[in-house]
Amino acid sequence: MSSAACIFCKIVKGDIPSLKLFESDKVLAFLDINPLSRGHALVIPKHHGEKLTDIPDDALTEILPVVKKLVKASGAENYNVLQNNGRIAHQEVDHVHFHMIPKPNAEEGMSIGWPQQKTDFDKLNALLAEIKAKM
Amino acid sequence: MSSAACIFCKIVKGDIPSLKLFESDKVLAFLDINPLSRGHALVIPKHHGEKLTDIPDDALTEILPVVKKLVKASGAENYNVLQNNGRIAHQEVDHVHFHMIPKPNAEEGMSIGWPQQKTDFDKLNALLAEIKAKM
Repeated sequence: MSSAACIFCKIVKGDIPSLKLFESDKVLAFLDINPLSRGHALVIPKHHGEKLTDIPDDALTEILPVVKKLVKASGAENYNVLQNNGRIAHQEVDHVHFHMIPKPNAEEGMSIGWPQQKTDFDKLNALLAEIKAKM
Repeated sequence: MSSAACIFCKIVKGDIPSLKLFESDKVLAFLDINPLSRGHALVIPKHHGEKLTDIPDDALTEILPVVKKLVKASGAENYNVLQNNGRIAHQEVDHVHFHMIPKPNAEEGMSIGWPQQKTDFDKLNALLAEIKAKM
């Protein structure tokens, strides 16, 4: 399944060139051309889907092993793996993609804001019951 | 494989309680008790390992399908999936864990700093050759 308008589907088809690191039947990996740090790469399922929930399980199982392969080959010691869903969550291309972003120092790589909320077990237990009922 | 000192291994064993959402032979999912937003959950391989490269492939394949399941059950529309490796990359517990963090609005959920570098194809092509040679 692919989408004619999608830039990542065009990369999968070879209609747009990419700095390809790895390819299998279901997964493609390539360097980000506007990296946050040296070695910043993307791993995508070939199956087109905007968000994680749009991708069938069998197109997802190989993703993390491929990310692992890239980490090892790039020599990154500290790194973030990030997958964004929705414009407000920083997604820019509407085809699921996993960033592998080395974090060599404070300046390069991604930075993270973490506005933690206080522990509220009453709220958390109510939420737990609610989510579990839907799983 | 587990580590006696690891808090997540203790959660896996049941020695420390958790707000458990899902469990299988290889994977455990539970609510973060200091959430960034409602529904913030963690998905971990039961296999102990500090960084992604320390986890065997067969302990990784189920992770993303479980994250998907949580997203659907929590009803999150916009969300980030994040896995940090190394203190400088914001890792706080040294047992691989994937955050599923709903992003309902600008204030809640994680925020992301994205210091993009300019495209430099000479550098990128040299890096591509270097990484591919190691894969």
